[in-house]
Amino acid sequence: MPYFDAASAAPLHPVARQALLASLDEGWADPARLYREGRRARMLLDASREAAAEAVGCRPDELVFTPSGTRAVHNGVAGALAGRRRAGRHLIVSAVEHSSVLHSAEVFASGGGTVTEVPVLRSGAVTVESYAGALRSDTALACLQSANHEVGTEQPVGEVAEACREAGVPLFVDAAQSLGWGPVEGPWSLLAASAHKWGGPSGVGLLVVRKGVRFAPQGPLDERESGRAAGFENIPAIVAAVASLRAVRAEAAAEAERLRELTGRIRAGVARSVPDVEVVGDAERRLPGIVTFSCLYVDGETLLHELDREGFSVSSGSSCTSSTLTPSHVLKAMGVLSEGNVRVSLPTGTAGADVERFLAVLPRAVAGVREKLGAPTPGPTAVTGADELVVDSLGKLCPVPVIELAKVIGQVPVGGTVRVLSDDEAARLDIPAWCQMRGQEYVGEEPADRGSAYLVRRLL
Amino acid sequence: MPYFDAASAAPLHPVARQALLASLDEGWADPARLYREGRRARMLLDASREAAAEAVGCRPDELVFTPSGTRAVHNGVAGALAGRRRAGRHLIVSAVEHSSVLHSAEVFASGGGTVTEVPVLRSGAVTVESYAGALRSDTALACLQSANHEVGTEQPVGEVAEACREAGVPLFVDAAQSLGWGPVEGPWSLLAASAHKWGGPSGVGLLVVRKGVRFAPQGPLDERESGRAAGFENIPAIVAAVASLRAVRAEAAAEAERLRELTGRIRAGVARSVPDVEVVGDAERRLPGIVTFSCLYVDGETLLHELDREGFSVSSGSSCTSSTLTPSHVLKAMGVLSEGNVRVSLPTGTAGADVERFLAVLPRAVAGVREKLGAPTPGPTAVTGADELVVDSLGKLCPVPVIELAKVIGQVPVGGTVRVLSDDEAARLDIPAWCQMRGQEYVGEEPADRGSAYLVRRLL
Repeated sequence: MPYFDAASAAPLHPVARQALLASLDEGWADPARLYREGRRARMLLDASREAAAEAVGCRPDELVFTPSGTRAVHNGVAGALAGRRRAGRHLIVSAVEHSSVLHSAEVFASGGGTVTEVPVLRSGAVTVESYAGALRSDTALACLQSANHEVGTEQPVGEVAEACREAGVPLFVDAAQSLGWGPVEGPWSLLAASAHKWGGPSGVGLLVVRKGVRFAPQGPLDERESGRAAGFENIPAIVAAVASLRAVRAEAAAEAERLRELTGRIRAGVARSVPDVEVVGDAERRLPGIVTFSCLYVDGETLLHELDREGFSVSSGSSCTSSTLTPSHVLKAMGVLSEGNVRVSLPTGTAGADVERFLAVLPRAVAGVREKLGAPTPGPTAVTGADELVVDSLGKLCPVPVIELAKVIGQVPVGGTVRVLSDDEAARLDIPAWCQMRGQEYVGEEPADRGSAYLVRRLL
Repeated sequence: MPYFDAASAAPLHPVARQALLASLDEGWADPARLYREGRRARMLLDASREAAAEAVGCRPDELVFTPSGTRAVHNGVAGALAGRRRAGRHLIVSAVEHSSVLHSAEVFASGGGTVTEVPVLRSGAVTVESYAGALRSDTALACLQSANHEVGTEQPVGEVAEACREAGVPLFVDAAQSLGWGPVEGPWSLLAASAHKWGGPSGVGLLVVRKGVRFAPQGPLDERESGRAAGFENIPAIVAAVASLRAVRAEAAAEAERLRELTGRIRAGVARSVPDVEVVGDAERRLPGIVTFSCLYVDGETLLHELDREGFSVSSGSSCTSSTLTPSHVLKAMGVLSEGNVRVSLPTGTAGADVERFLAVLPRAVAGVREKLGAPTPGPTAVTGADELVVDSLGKLCPVPVIELAKVIGQVPVGGTVRVLSDDEAARLDIPAWCQMRGQEYVGEEPADRGSAYLVRRLL
């Protein structure tokens, strides 16, 4: 039963399991106590901190353990912004950061701060120029992920860190997706990561604050972990997290090559065997294990369900699989299709045979969903006369507005237009993306009584 | 090697260990995902929530899991205060709350809120009258622990909850020390607890917010755990935490009786066999496993070290064992002696023979420390004439100022005074406590060039 959602949570690494079991009896006591159980716990904690710091490439006293990657981000961003309050109240984030970063930015903005969101290319990457261009004299902090969690695109973190250093602005790097593969390059100032992304247990994050970076922990005082992560330390989990980080690092070079070949196979195979598909993310500068694609005329939730029935656990950034009804902000920022979106993220050790079986199953699964939804089939459509057609898709969710558009586009003559009325948030992304994939012209969006009107001109 | 510091962290319960192992393979995936690994994780999380809610006596949708008890307190207090902002900006806490509550109150005060600290009796308990008297029309929240973590005294939570209900003020109960023994009585509104206090693993806290209580989570948005506890859920640890809660509850009545007898034996034995000792905390209304006492003329750190060498792991609220150089705020609020303070907190399953051995070892250990410190020995002292003596203890730490006072008190005639100069924070607590234990009169404290002058009149 292949699990292909390692970017959400990786299965527990065997080394993590062993380390957890071994330290359950040694690491449960309070490391602040002076008696032997406390000293033992303290030794485990200190040794873990040293090993983690070595893997990150920092000093042990720069690194604290937090209860999650999310907490590392929340505490890190808030502490850095407060520590640099006198420098200014301006924060830079990329448009494709993890939600924990973006939600931290929202809190900052609601408290009177200014936030610049640096846009990304269609590949999902920022350019160094646009990022550097956002730096201001009152910039307190800049945030950039090492690699994207939804599409795998690597960011130019090293060069952005250099630009930030020149500007005297600390760079906070969310390294959640990449730390298992290697240290983050460049003169970054703060870093966050999450153990369950590299096969460690849940409940452990890392926050690194380089010496010399002004940092003022927020929230109630707590003496643990240098005051940067409140609450009793979860030492057995920390030991397990660090043991698995070392284990995956030892295998990283070989495994990266192997997974990169497998995801390359998926990129090529999907494009070849699934019609009307867009493989998204940078083809070269990407994480080894992640590949993401979107399928026209497909409801993401139904496709995930079909793949689950076939034994494949994957994830999706389509709005129809989430409770929020808005498509992934990452796909939106990239300007790519969101409907029928599938993220495949291979855990280390994934067998090639499982990938082959996935490639064999996928076209049938996509076709099945399209058939159920009545997706348009290729072939000529009779032009019915009118130069402009209106499609009322109000109240209908992704991918129905796009399906209805595709069904009628052939009915207007070349040069004619179709106006799609839709109140589904995904249409704003998916109708332009459909036009780009199909060589039609996306004219624009106009306000309507309900929702919006999306105007499309037939070019072929 | 008896571990007698269960109030800091209890050793992992065998049931917790089993449950943790069993759920490592089932509970690592993201419970928000729709595929089978996610559904399995979700089922474990839901089942744990139901079982925890049953043990607490609340609805499952009123209970969330947090990464620690500290986090449950921080999130709970901040959310309740923000939710009731329109009711007012007044917070009530008892003077002996856990530091996580008091530090939350500090954050509230620094943001412009007003905090009333309700004093306690010498037993460590608030009175219902004084607590109810602190309620105001603008009180947003009231906090009271179910039982004290340092001295074991139970608070009149049920009656205080009734008073709060009558006043329309929600009561937040820190139940960290008591939840393993039974549910908290009375119409409380919010509750926090910590799994590693009842033999669960580290990394799990509980936060309960009753339906109808206004609550506005603070910090960056995060959809997990009803938005009340950010970060990826640690499901194996949650499963283990709840399994051990059920297990300790099943044994609670019998074990409470057994431990109460053992701590009763310690209370009596210490008072009988150690001279110049004060057993503190309520003798009746107390947790089964905790007993606390303070020894005159003893340095807490040295005593802990001696007991550790004898194989006993205990804790202390003396300033000399902490990095802060201020004695425990609990002992201070109670007005009891802090020097030579020892907290014995027995884990469930503690053998009677270990308690007996502790009682055999303790008098010798205390005597040894006193001898090293040159503590005064009983017996007559020649009056040297002067009506007032000055003892300069500046720069000397607890218990030296008290030892020096005790050595010279016999040198002034009855009715004469000794003036102790000290800049040690503990002297403010320990000199009056010594007077009370020795039947001498504590006249008061006066400012001095450095530190303070403490004036004592010889009565006998």
